[in-house]
Amino acid sequence: MTTILQGKVKTVFTTDEPEVVLIQYEDKVTAGNGRKVDFPEGKGEVCCKISQLLFEHLGKYGIRTHYISMPTQHSMICNKVDIIPIEVVVRNIAAGSIVRQTNITEGTSFDWPLVEWYLKDDEKDDPLLTEARIWAMGNFPLRDMEQTAREVNGIVGKLFEQIGLTLVDFKLEFGYDSGQNLLLADELSPDSMRLWKDGKSFDKDLFRNDEGDIVEAYTYILEELRKIT
Amino acid sequence: MTTILQGKVKTVFTTDEPEVVLIQYEDKVTAGNGRKVDFPEGKGEVCCKISQLLFEHLGKYGIRTHYISMPTQHSMICNKVDIIPIEVVVRNIAAGSIVRQTNITEGTSFDWPLVEWYLKDDEKDDPLLTEARIWAMGNFPLRDMEQTAREVNGIVGKLFEQIGLTLVDFKLEFGYDSGQNLLLADELSPDSMRLWKDGKSFDKDLFRNDEGDIVEAYTYILEELRKIT
Repeated sequence: MTTILQGKVKTVFTTDEPEVVLIQYEDKVTAGNGRKVDFPEGKGEVCCKISQLLFEHLGKYGIRTHYISMPTQHSMICNKVDIIPIEVVVRNIAAGSIVRQTNITEGTSFDWPLVEWYLKDDEKDDPLLTEARIWAMGNFPLRDMEQTAREVNGIVGKLFEQIGLTLVDFKLEFGYDSGQNLLLADELSPDSMRLWKDGKSFDKDLFRNDEGDIVEAYTYILEELRKIT
Repeated sequence: MTTILQGKVKTVFTTDEPEVVLIQYEDKVTAGNGRKVDFPEGKGEVCCKISQLLFEHLGKYGIRTHYISMPTQHSMICNKVDIIPIEVVVRNIAAGSIVRQTNITEGTSFDWPLVEWYLKDDEKDDPLLTEARIWAMGNFPLRDMEQTAREVNGIVGKLFEQIGLTLVDFKLEFGYDSGQNLLLADELSPDSMRLWKDGKSFDKDLFRNDEGDIVEAYTYILEELRKIT
């Protein structure tokens, strides 16, 4: 096994099959594009397990993801994909950067969820993109990504609703496999979403704002999700 | 005369008429949202005169602007407007922030000029807006502003072409007068646009990048424009 890619909190390795990779979830959390870092024990495992649960749940609804299987407690076997360098963010309620960059008040509910695009580029600090800028950059499957993102929002939002959590926003990444199929990739965990319950965060904001133990909050979510899926 | 508004390089005063203001162009230039400042002699006058010339020229084509008259060498009588807090940027060629925030190379020509929106908010550093964010913020006359901005681009771009300058990009502000007419407002000068000639800047980038004397460059532009209008 050789390392293909060393991400901020995950490592991608080759496997015996050229079209398949192993993604290892590390006991590491970062915020502010890596400016804040910690290494909480058990964090990789809980994120891996929540991602597995959500990818499998989405699969039941026909959403195609890169997930294949989970050989260890903190790693996934996945289809190898060429990641599209555009991150998709779905927002149901205003929080985070959209509050800092507009006059929209935190907590504002959007009647029609916002689907936003960001350049996946750590050096440039993942800037917000307009669709006009994207068309000028090249040809990307925006409408397909938007449709899948809205479907994921409906399916995952309902799941969290059942355990009393509000899905505020989340980030998705997509990629093409060797057959040029567009697959949902990366991870789907409280590291890449905001989840609120009674005015409290159950997501990476606990770490961003020093408000609590993320492994504890994530483990609670995993246990609650397991009861209903 | 009392001060209504102290901008970064212009001051707005009341006049005897409630619907009319006097806008004084100061001998001052700023960049990076005020982080870099200088006070070049004659700068207010040349920006005021270029703005006057361009507003009058646009008027011939039916573009409604706030400009009424020029009582002194560095001040304008204008219709009082409620400024819409969304700045409009038209880009013919990639330069500046769009290069820093995308993978688009500086100097790339856009087949169809990009019309972009920015929140007019110095505290937030005038962030880029998507149309979805704007709709979530409220009701703004985006299509009217876009159409006027594209017309201004055609008219002003042609004028600069005649004096050998390429209009790379520019920023506009709009406002409503007391009769709810949408007027082009603020200024229209090399302070709010990029103009290139033989790979050299004739605009505020000279100051931003310490590449030359802006008053000299702006005066050259004014003199050349006067020959053809």
